[in-house]
Amino acid sequence: MRRANIALIGYAFMGRAHSNAYRQVTPFLSPRVAPRMKVLCGRTAGSVEAAARQYGWDETATDWEAVVRRDDIDVIDIAAPGNMHAPIAIAAARAGKVVFCEKPLANTLPEAKRMLAAVEKAGVLHMICHNYRRAPAVMLARELIAGGRIGDIRHYRGTYLQDWISDPAFPLVWRLDRGQAGSGALGDIAAHSIDLARFLVGEIAEVSGDLKTFVTERPLPGARGKKGRVTVDDAAAALVRFENGAIGTIEASRMAPGRKNYNRFEINGSKGSVAFDLERMNELEVYLDSDPAAVRGFHRVQVTEPTHPYMKAWWPPGHIIGYEHTFTHTVFDLLEAMADDRLPEPNFIDGVRNQQVLHAIEKSSQTRRWTRV
Amino acid sequence: MRRANIALIGYAFMGRAHSNAYRQVTPFLSPRVAPRMKVLCGRTAGSVEAAARQYGWDETATDWEAVVRRDDIDVIDIAAPGNMHAPIAIAAARAGKVVFCEKPLANTLPEAKRMLAAVEKAGVLHMICHNYRRAPAVMLARELIAGGRIGDIRHYRGTYLQDWISDPAFPLVWRLDRGQAGSGALGDIAAHSIDLARFLVGEIAEVSGDLKTFVTERPLPGARGKKGRVTVDDAAAALVRFENGAIGTIEASRMAPGRKNYNRFEINGSKGSVAFDLERMNELEVYLDSDPAAVRGFHRVQVTEPTHPYMKAWWPPGHIIGYEHTFTHTVFDLLEAMADDRLPEPNFIDGVRNQQVLHAIEKSSQTRRWTRV
Amino acid sequence: MRRANIALIGYAFMGRAHSNAYRQVTPFLSPRVAPRMKVLCGRTAGSVEAAARQYGWDETATDWEAVVRRDDIDVIDIAAPGNMHAPIAIAAARAGKVVFCEKPLANTLPEAKRMLAAVEKAGVLHMICHNYRRAPAVMLARELIAGGRIGDIRHYRGTYLQDWISDPAFPLVWRLDRGQAGSGALGDIAAHSIDLARFLVGEIAEVSGDLKTFVTERPLPGARGKKGRVTVDDAAAALVRFENGAIGTIEASRMAPGRKNYNRFEINGSKGSVAFDLERMNELEVYLDSDPAAVRGFHRVQVTEPTHPYMKAWWPPGHIIGYEHTFTHTVFDLLEAMADDRLPEPNFIDGVRNQQVLHAIEKSSQTRRWTRV
Amino acid sequence: MRRANIALIGYAFMGRAHSNAYRQVTPFLSPRVAPRMKVLCGRTAGSVEAAARQYGWDETATDWEAVVRRDDIDVIDIAAPGNMHAPIAIAAARAGKVVFCEKPLANTLPEAKRMLAAVEKAGVLHMICHNYRRAPAVMLARELIAGGRIGDIRHYRGTYLQDWISDPAFPLVWRLDRGQAGSGALGDIAAHSIDLARFLVGEIAEVSGDLKTFVTERPLPGARGKKGRVTVDDAAAALVRFENGAIGTIEASRMAPGRKNYNRFEINGSKGSVAFDLERMNELEVYLDSDPAAVRGFHRVQVTEPTHPYMKAWWPPGHIIGYEHTFTHTVFDLLEAMADDRLPEPNFIDGVRNQQVLHAIEKSSQTRRWTRV
Repeated sequence: MRRANIALIGYAFMGRAHSNAYRQVTPFLSPRVAPRMKVLCGRTAGSVEAAARQYGWDETATDWEAVVRRDDIDVIDIAAPGNMHAPIAIAAARAGKVVFCEKPLANTLPEAKRMLAAVEKAGVLHMICHNYRRAPAVMLARELIAGGRIGDIRHYRGTYLQDWISDPAFPLVWRLDRGQAGSGALGDIAAHSIDLARFLVGEIAEVSGDLKTFVTERPLPGARGKKGRVTVDDAAAALVRFENGAIGTIEASRMAPGRKNYNRFEINGSKGSVAFDLERMNELEVYLDSDPAAVRGFHRVQVTEPTHPYMKAWWPPGHIIGYEHTFTHTVFDLLEAMADDRLPEPNFIDGVRNQQVLHAIEKSSQTRRWTRV
Repeated sequence: MRRANIALIGYAFMGRAHSNAYRQVTPFLSPRVAPRMKVLCGRTAGSVEAAARQYGWDETATDWEAVVRRDDIDVIDIAAPGNMHAPIAIAAARAGKVVFCEKPLANTLPEAKRMLAAVEKAGVLHMICHNYRRAPAVMLARELIAGGRIGDIRHYRGTYLQDWISDPAFPLVWRLDRGQAGSGALGDIAAHSIDLARFLVGEIAEVSGDLKTFVTERPLPGARGKKGRVTVDDAAAALVRFENGAIGTIEASRMAPGRKNYNRFEINGSKGSVAFDLERMNELEVYLDSDPAAVRGFHRVQVTEPTHPYMKAWWPPGHIIGYEHTFTHTVFDLLEAMADDRLPEPNFIDGVRNQQVLHAIEKSSQTRRWTRV
Repeated sequence: MRRANIALIGYAFMGRAHSNAYRQVTPFLSPRVAPRMKVLCGRTAGSVEAAARQYGWDETATDWEAVVRRDDIDVIDIAAPGNMHAPIAIAAARAGKVVFCEKPLANTLPEAKRMLAAVEKAGVLHMICHNYRRAPAVMLARELIAGGRIGDIRHYRGTYLQDWISDPAFPLVWRLDRGQAGSGALGDIAAHSIDLARFLVGEIAEVSGDLKTFVTERPLPGARGKKGRVTVDDAAAALVRFENGAIGTIEASRMAPGRKNYNRFEINGSKGSVAFDLERMNELEVYLDSDPAAVRGFHRVQVTEPTHPYMKAWWPPGHIIGYEHTFTHTVFDLLEAMADDRLPEPNFIDGVRNQQVLHAIEKSSQTRRWTRV
Repeated sequence: MRRANIALIGYAFMGRAHSNAYRQVTPFLSPRVAPRMKVLCGRTAGSVEAAARQYGWDETATDWEAVVRRDDIDVIDIAAPGNMHAPIAIAAARAGKVVFCEKPLANTLPEAKRMLAAVEKAGVLHMICHNYRRAPAVMLARELIAGGRIGDIRHYRGTYLQDWISDPAFPLVWRLDRGQAGSGALGDIAAHSIDLARFLVGEIAEVSGDLKTFVTERPLPGARGKKGRVTVDDAAAALVRFENGAIGTIEASRMAPGRKNYNRFEINGSKGSVAFDLERMNELEVYLDSDPAAVRGFHRVQVTEPTHPYMKAWWPPGHIIGYEHTFTHTVFDLLEAMADDRLPEPNFIDGVRNQQVLHAIEKSSQTRRWTRV
């Protein structure tokens, strides 16, 4: 069986999720290319060694440039902060590696475009980690739509809500700093909702956006009593028009008390509807005009049957899977694409398109008028 | 006990709902002014007589102008089509009647303003029937917000979805004709969501709107095989900014399969959230940061306790009420205001403000930029 | 059109619900026999007069025996306490009246049997008010079952929970006294669950029952500091076997905090399932094995379509009805049966069967073994 | 750090779940004793080798007796069919191993008792794998109850429903054979509901049970056209009385269409209620009388906060975990108990108590009367 040596750069939240995916993909999904957890790379030697021990990596490194040059590495997996995506991805592409990158592809649109140009020029495989596409319920939604089950799409309603910065006393962490994070709720979570819109409905043609920062100053971590300026949006909202004639709303906020990871969408077609909520990610709500009139109503489908996407790999019906499984499925798709030497989806093209939408929303929020993507 | 003689103009869907409210308000809510169902007025003598018999009106009439002039009438209740609201309301005001009018106040903003001017000049009491304010769960939301329980409001998310014109074969009824209906989903149902936004959050300062007609031609009723043009919107969406700094989205569609009367809102404040869905109108979801950490989560409050708004009048806890009760509560509030000779709420001022928001959304959808209300 | 003069005996909670049904049935359902609210009868002259004024009765009376003898009365409606059902019903039957009686038919099985004998001997129409059969969602469940949509029934799971006596400080009201109420949760609410079991599944053949009183002494109302003994059950539970081979559980409690009027059942057949909860009485959950595999899941059916039982009479889809409408539907069915001069359902035969089940549960709880009904 | 060498006997469904737990416990929960996946043991050499490769075990074996005698093995984990539990556990105890056994402890009560005697005589640590105790929501329920938050327990309502044998064409697999499986729904799934009852409420004193086999003959696998007798129950139901005065119902069926893994309980106390459904295992519903009256209602608690049991080890709030995590938590508790050299819970004492309840239900179903446990 083919093997692929992986180097993962970054070992925080996303590094942990990616590590788990490599550890779990073989026992459960048996990809034709088996990953080997070769090198974990991070800036601080002690921490990266502890992480590697805990997550099961063979080696550690602190110099990503050296790692990218290693001959024994097949895949560079980028889970570093957004401002590091471009330099790492471009170097990895030049070194001929498969490049797997966390979302958003970059902090700015020009960076994203340079990344895409680099992988295309180098002719390497590339993928962006929009893991929520790989929730089985989302894949089922895609299949139903592709099969024409809900007809022509008219409405997309995407809402991604969290509440972890609701309290003004929450400190000014790196995600609230434009220099490091690029944007706030927009790039962090609206980007997910935009990806799902593109995946399930189609390309977005035009947007009218609004960004809002409710809490403009927050305590500086470690600086007793001092405050700093929040330089990103707390919330983002947009009206969108799709190329195929559908219309939509996309909204993201990290200030919605009680919503922890509420990545919800509802899609209405001419013959039915589907709705999804990540907090109940094993379920899909489906409404079909084709049901007998007396019993028409949203089906609460438990997407845990062996016939549902990816689920044969796991447990019997009704035995749910968790958040991290979406990464395991994504990594599986990457490895299978490598086995076939074909471009996986979503890839850097999707990353650039997504960034274009984010960019248009930001621009529209400044010009106060509709903006073409 | 004081009595008030009512004349109701219109006997279709809304006429039926208002008739029921007058019949039920005394047995259940014992208002200090008791309504007498005096005259039902409509254009077609036979139909209006049948309706009066069925709903319990003393008399019928076909000439609304004559009815408005009658000395024995205290209240003119206008449930006629939107293009008739202004002439009737203005005549009723001049005749010194209390004027109770269905929403939207008028088909155009200028008409609405003339109606307000007329009732103010005449010094008569006036009320607009935004009945959903009077769902006990909505009143409870209002009380919680007014009491500071969810802190400063940051987000309003209003979505009013139905599906009755989803099928392109559905005929070109009067509600799809701009001349009679003024607008489509915008004035018919987004108007409700706007009223709830104003009631629960505050005045809307600015909007960015989008209107869409998916099915542009439909069969003409009674004209076998012929089609006519749909001249109103099938769906309406808007981003809004409130005067108090909150932001929001408002969306309405009559093309969302499976959503029958899904008038939903979610409001996020700095200390909690509330959410409501008219299809489950006896419930309010409430999230409070002040709950003990271990058990924090949305409460599903059954708004059926005797301590909840209006509910003492009805049944024991857990015994739900229906759609029409919201009209009964509205009529109760009108009668109580009459007993005190004070202006009820919502009134024509609210009607005009609502119309201004509708107008701004429509204008913004044409200019493709943000518009001040 | 035929008219029927009604005399209602009792004006408390049930009297109020029945009055409303007579007031509302004509405007909404147009029965072929129109009820006239002739006499309201109760023990205390002042109170009954106030109630009659409020609910809209023509006259009042304090002597039920005189009322029963009146020539101008067609229907005797019994909403008096349980221990009064038998004498009134028997006298009414002898006087040739249609007899409409609240559930449970009587406080004891022998009384119930004498009532049935009396109406049968007199040859009068009789009906028992098991109003929950007339919730449209329950009727829809019945239609689906009768149509074979969920196959052969295997399981009935009935749970009726309330919480109003959960607090030990709640006083010793009449419903907690065996002499007046007959039993506790058993006759008050388990009786409903048993009726639904019989209506939807079939006759119960055998039971194993358990009764429990958690709070054995409670404050006597009006007797400061004194306590009295609770002589009825706080909760009742039973295993049941149906004649057709299905098995079931039936449970009722008035000590389940948070459950206000949670009359829930789930029925599993060989080809599907249905589930209902009175707190969301406009919905029916339906699971069908015949659905396409990918979208199999419980349908949340909003039972508000004009094609659903009784719903054409009310509002458009998604506009829900309330608790009291179940009485209006029951009264409609009574009046329609009178128009056809046929026995309505459920009637005293059902009342006796229900009582036999209650009796068997009580007996089984004493002998601690299975008991045939 | 201490290490423990594990030998796992059995590699089917449960073997897969246990393997995953050993693989995941260190990366996420860092137990003080680290497991080493040493030997996987099964009857068929080829299959066990394939399984070991896939799940990550060092070695394989086909002779469990040899494995039990190996000096380098610390823990014998028994995931073999029920009729093998006793011989393996007793041999393992004699060999001085820690014994970790799947539920139910044995197919019969006498076997279970001999197993308990063996581990107690040998003085070895022992644990039974009732993994659902380790769902964070269940642990939270336990903490709330232990902290007195819902007062004295009055009701337990346990329902475990599946639907995989609903179709009479489903073949006669080993789980439907009394010789191999001991019982049907009773031991397979009611056992879980009984364990949760004991964990959350207390010891069961008395039961009245009912067992039912709806489909008495099924196709023999591999024997074209032949049928064999089903010798276990399809469904089991019981009324129970707890030693502390609470009462309950416990029901299990594998013939409830639409219920895939619906392990639900509701517990009502004198001051509140909790409810859980394994199909939504990251949520706990909590009702508290102590909430302010206006907002009283069931809280939908997302049990995903770092302060909730076990959840600090996983992902941020709202990022749910899956079914298999309950095994990982159970194994963590086993390893932590080994680190402290104390008896973990639940252990063989719980296994015997559980078996006693199963036994009493079975006996009661035959005698048709209440039976003491």
